[in-house]
Amino acid sequence: MEAYYPQFSERFQEMLRGLKGRKVAVVGHARPDGDCIGSQVGMSRLLASQGIENVCVNGDAVPERLLFLVPDMKFLRTDDILPIADQFTAVFVDCADGARCGDRLQVIFPRPYAMVDHHISNQGYAEHDFVEPNSASTTEILAGVCLDLDIPIDAVAAQALYTGILTDTGQFKFPATTRNTFLLAAELFRCGAKPSEAGYELYERESLGKIQLLQMFLASFQMEYANRICLGVVTWQMFKPTNTSTEDTEGLVDYTRSIDGVDIGVLIEEREDGSLKASLRAKDPIYRMDKVAALFNGGGHACAAGLNLKQDTENFRARLVAALIAQIEAVESKTNS
Amino acid sequence: MEAYYPQFSERFQEMLRGLKGRKVAVVGHARPDGDCIGSQVGMSRLLASQGIENVCVNGDAVPERLLFLVPDMKFLRTDDILPIADQFTAVFVDCADGARCGDRLQVIFPRPYAMVDHHISNQGYAEHDFVEPNSASTTEILAGVCLDLDIPIDAVAAQALYTGILTDTGQFKFPATTRNTFLLAAELFRCGAKPSEAGYELYERESLGKIQLLQMFLASFQMEYANRICLGVVTWQMFKPTNTSTEDTEGLVDYTRSIDGVDIGVLIEEREDGSLKASLRAKDPIYRMDKVAALFNGGGHACAAGLNLKQDTENFRARLVAALIAQIEAVESKTNS
Repeated sequence: MEAYYPQFSERFQEMLRGLKGRKVAVVGHARPDGDCIGSQVGMSRLLASQGIENVCVNGDAVPERLLFLVPDMKFLRTDDILPIADQFTAVFVDCADGARCGDRLQVIFPRPYAMVDHHISNQGYAEHDFVEPNSASTTEILAGVCLDLDIPIDAVAAQALYTGILTDTGQFKFPATTRNTFLLAAELFRCGAKPSEAGYELYERESLGKIQLLQMFLASFQMEYANRICLGVVTWQMFKPTNTSTEDTEGLVDYTRSIDGVDIGVLIEEREDGSLKASLRAKDPIYRMDKVAALFNGGGHACAAGLNLKQDTENFRARLVAALIAQIEAVESKTNS
Repeated sequence: MEAYYPQFSERFQEMLRGLKGRKVAVVGHARPDGDCIGSQVGMSRLLASQGIENVCVNGDAVPERLLFLVPDMKFLRTDDILPIADQFTAVFVDCADGARCGDRLQVIFPRPYAMVDHHISNQGYAEHDFVEPNSASTTEILAGVCLDLDIPIDAVAAQALYTGILTDTGQFKFPATTRNTFLLAAELFRCGAKPSEAGYELYERESLGKIQLLQMFLASFQMEYANRICLGVVTWQMFKPTNTSTEDTEGLVDYTRSIDGVDIGVLIEEREDGSLKASLRAKDPIYRMDKVAALFNGGGHACAAGLNLKQDTENFRARLVAALIAQIEAVESKTNS
């Protein structure tokens, strides 16, 4: 059997040796998704299996739809860790940069001891960096490293690692899905992952209000640039009548990209305080959504990126569309020349 | 390496030997889905690799969204095969019974030479039956048999077999998804399957009209039996203003099942001629949708079944709801006793 991540094996073991006797904070990113929580759970169990005491820390709560991944685990929030932070060594997972954990957590852990991630925009920021942008998810890296190093994967870790793969590949359909993705899914199944449970928890527990929110969102679609860009909006006013919350916007952006001829789909979430969040999705990685997001202090992957703006949201829509068109044209003039 | 379908190996080779020198019609079911077309393509390439001349035959056209699976293949319709049918030996795929290919094709091929299928309701109807209801798709069986017998799988066959797995598992989330499902997906990737292309063709080429049809469908939801049954309706009147057709109802039923607390989701399609089609989806196989469908001369799987009614659709909705409630109560009284 070939190794999945031979380039990491030796350094990963060295990194683990350095953690012996320390207490570790396993830190994920703000507004955590399946790959983030999956990676935190996976890393936490991995460390525990090596006798390394640890806790998971996240600036935001584990979303309700992902609670099935953390049956017996406690996640600390920023205020919980703040008074005792000096006891902990930080290991970051699924964070493209040191700020993705949130401003306050970054102040607590300005230079993590180690980091595992798969974002193409990741430039490295820890003492021990493990970044592989060709991996479909951060959990794919963690699963592969565990198998390479014969680190046991219990059923809880297997389900968490599997779920990260499932969500970050859009259910095995994004371009990063490879032979290894399926081989690792098979191995995680053997270790106790339950695909049908994950599918049920993630995709078959929607509220009736979410169905109504989806209707409103679909009705908001506007097309730009000869129907090659589709924008959909969720406003804060939509939440109350549908009894939904920001957590329920998960997955909505995929509908904008699902349309034939659309190269880039966008979800804009407008908050009551005037701030906003935008999610950018491209069908083809050549459009490098991470670069467009970076223009607005965001980041992410080539096909899936995001940004948060606190103020100055005026004319944001027009500015974003202009930036997307400029990106499409820049990429295509390069491709055609 | 363990064999995937050791129970079929010897009989399958014997079946193939019997086809040497014959011309084969590879027949799928009416209103073909991804697993049907995938199985027909897979079986056709399998036979060709053994030097067995063959054509694919289907009562209905290959749906537009599945045309990417048949880049260089001709599918005959009933009228094409009718005048020359006596030259052909029939091999059925993905048909739960001999009538699923359509009335006229069944008259032409009343007793197929061989059949490969994974429907739990399949009682056998060919000279050589290969039925494994535990398989996630018919293409899973075909892929496994090819690998077991060292039958080559070209890139076109790999993509078709992969797509059957993808669609019949609901993107790897239905309960039949197992370790073998992922191992076979990995093998098919090695043989040339392209998950991102399949994902794009199936889930990212929706028309804007389909988005509008989805809105109308979501708005039609009605809940029954303390919100444990969700029914959605597509009427023929919805097609014209949205520029959609019956092909665009594919996948809609999944939204009815996606709601928390719903055990059974139903899509009813009302046709202009008074006929109708109903798709039944259960979250848990204990509810045996194939049995409820059978009450209306339909069939299928425990979690996914369907039925077509030509006439007498009056009060159908009420009769179906009554049958579903009776089924839930019968199953649960048995479970609780």
